[in-house]
Amino acid sequence: MANARSRSKGVAGWLPVEGGVTAPEGYLASGVAAGIKAEGLDLAVVFSSLPASAAGVFTRNRVQAAPVRLSRERLKLSRGRARAILVNSGCANACTGERGDKDSLLSAQSLASRLNVDAGQVLVASTGAIGYFLPMPKLLKGVGAAASALNSKGGLAAAHAIMTTDTCEKVVAFEGVVGGKVVRIGGMAKGSGMIHPDMATMLGVITTDFKVAPGALQKVLRRVVERTFNCLTVDGDTSTNDTVFVLANGASGAAASDGRSLLEFEKGLGLVCAELAKKIARDGEGATKFVEVTVSRAADFASARTVAKAIAHSPLVKTALFGQELNWGRILCAVGYSKVPFDPDEVALSLNGIPIFRKGAPVAATRARAEKAIQARDLKIEVDLAGGRESATVWTCDLSHEYVNINASYIS
Amino acid sequence: MANARSRSKGVAGWLPVEGGVTAPEGYLASGVAAGIKAEGLDLAVVFSSLPASAAGVFTRNRVQAAPVRLSRERLKLSRGRARAILVNSGCANACTGERGDKDSLLSAQSLASRLNVDAGQVLVASTGAIGYFLPMPKLLKGVGAAASALNSKGGLAAAHAIMTTDTCEKVVAFEGVVGGKVVRIGGMAKGSGMIHPDMATMLGVITTDFKVAPGALQKVLRRVVERTFNCLTVDGDTSTNDTVFVLANGASGAAASDGRSLLEFEKGLGLVCAELAKKIARDGEGATKFVEVTVSRAADFASARTVAKAIAHSPLVKTALFGQELNWGRILCAVGYSKVPFDPDEVALSLNGIPIFRKGAPVAATRARAEKAIQARDLKIEVDLAGGRESATVWTCDLSHEYVNINASYIS
Repeated sequence: MANARSRSKGVAGWLPVEGGVTAPEGYLASGVAAGIKAEGLDLAVVFSSLPASAAGVFTRNRVQAAPVRLSRERLKLSRGRARAILVNSGCANACTGERGDKDSLLSAQSLASRLNVDAGQVLVASTGAIGYFLPMPKLLKGVGAAASALNSKGGLAAAHAIMTTDTCEKVVAFEGVVGGKVVRIGGMAKGSGMIHPDMATMLGVITTDFKVAPGALQKVLRRVVERTFNCLTVDGDTSTNDTVFVLANGASGAAASDGRSLLEFEKGLGLVCAELAKKIARDGEGATKFVEVTVSRAADFASARTVAKAIAHSPLVKTALFGQELNWGRILCAVGYSKVPFDPDEVALSLNGIPIFRKGAPVAATRARAEKAIQARDLKIEVDLAGGRESATVWTCDLSHEYVNINASYIS
Repeated sequence: MANARSRSKGVAGWLPVEGGVTAPEGYLASGVAAGIKAEGLDLAVVFSSLPASAAGVFTRNRVQAAPVRLSRERLKLSRGRARAILVNSGCANACTGERGDKDSLLSAQSLASRLNVDAGQVLVASTGAIGYFLPMPKLLKGVGAAASALNSKGGLAAAHAIMTTDTCEKVVAFEGVVGGKVVRIGGMAKGSGMIHPDMATMLGVITTDFKVAPGALQKVLRRVVERTFNCLTVDGDTSTNDTVFVLANGASGAAASDGRSLLEFEKGLGLVCAELAKKIARDGEGATKFVEVTVSRAADFASARTVAKAIAHSPLVKTALFGQELNWGRILCAVGYSKVPFDPDEVALSLNGIPIFRKGAPVAATRARAEKAIQARDLKIEVDLAGGRESATVWTCDLSHEYVNINASYIS
């Protein structure tokens, strides 16, 4: 316990553990093949054996998928309480009109009756191609199978079942000590293309055995998402289905009894969300590079993130990184069109710690080193705006032939 | 003349003619190989044999190339008068500090002395890779050659000399009748990548023998650019060097004597700029499709253009078009994240006139026809927002493997 207590002093006090969404106490999960996709797991259930606080953030796209509309409404009606989450891949159930709404509702009702919980306690999410209806007979049969398969080690199978063009499962879990008690936070996410979250990522489910009231949980989630999932971009396309859910069932015995313990929990949740966001960028469609863009000395966080995102969105920057060309002019060009004020003669640019541009001109002496550095798998682009005290980090990937391949033949 | 008069009644009154920037009376042009690029023409001069009104619009990127800074200052100091324009390809002279400023100034001075005009009467523009210095000995020698080569049929050579990754020259000229006199407007432009003009395109030079005061010319140019070059995107990257110049020397004898003649001129200028913008989209880097996106029944022009640009920017939409997949959900998704308010149940979508989505659901009956239509070289995407009376049209292209090829090895 002494060890655990010393770990609780800061972010470093949270240590990674196995298990994803089933790492915290009191959660079961499963992933099954319902036949929504041509092959592989495509239906996931996460279940809290205890009543739980629930919070969610959703896409700000005006075109919202049926499951987004349903889950948003349910969280409001239940005042932030939920027991289970049903997620399918292979079909986004977006732009499907009234029939889509009915299908989402029926799916949720079916799982609720299998789990013997109130119908309002099931949240839903879908991912896949837009404009297609859910294959309901297959899906309902799958719901039965997924409910039967629920188990305390199902976190990985569930993470696998929500994948689309992802090449790997994205799971993470951390353990820390809050108020003298061991608390775990676990999460899973999917996403590889159509990634430019605006208030949420493509899909994320986070569980914790911490006890926290729904209102506080929602506020903490919003703050954390702003600096994690919302600092992520693959292609600048904000999905119709972006959703992040958190369930908090209190099974650890640790509770948000004061501001300090809530802050400690927020740090842990931040770690989980940041790790998931980085995993999504690293597995961006066709990615050959993982790119971290940090903009420092900006007037405020929003300005810093705007500049970082301008760089991270630019297809010219991203193709140059794919080609391993030190075409840093494209980075400065993106900084320049971001609409954030700065003095071009004061801005400084570096790559993996090597200065490239400063005082209005290229740094000639480091050119050879920088040309070598750009060949690394992981790249760190740093821009110093010399205009304030705030900074932001955004995660992205390069733009490769494979991205074009994947998206030129997605539905066929 | 009777025929000419009947043509002057509307936009249709302007008819295309040959010659580009040398189509109007009183202009000479040339394009030479100065050795700035590894091969081919790379230096262009456009010269008005009479004093001319001049107007310019420039990039709003905060990082501005040396030639942009110089030309902006000169137009201000000369109160909108210029005689010649010097344009080089192969080097953007951007992010080059004080040395870059001196190089641009020296280039302009050199051309002025060759042409025996006041140094303040020469405007300059550059295009190519960012972060490299102009090869001044080569460039100055080229200025001499270009000045000697000036001729009244040089419009095509000049247009060729400003190309970078362009696969063809972009020239256009129209002839109309204003106030009973024949007026011509000619133009050239370059641009294929880093195309998302904000107040100008990559580079455009327009000449006319119409007589119009500098202040009125600047206002007309701004209005026209807003609905032509600023409705163009290839990759969403706003260049550091975007520039459009217009020279008006009055050689036709026709003048902006009243509001009606100025309006007639504005129509002609609009035609020239729109044709150049479409040529740039059609020759977008790696393009296999020319795509016109029209958004109608929006609250205002700005909203309509915002929605159209969201579609035109989306790498998911653009790769689907390259793959000839009718993945229309991505189009609606882009409409949804454009931040412009609309009712998703009222929006309608069509492709080359074939309805695809309306009343909140896909149009099943037209699916096969639409899947065939998407194989055409020229695509017309129409979105009806059902929310107002204004519309906007944006031009773009698809996103292909060749775009990645070109930009993964641009400077090497």
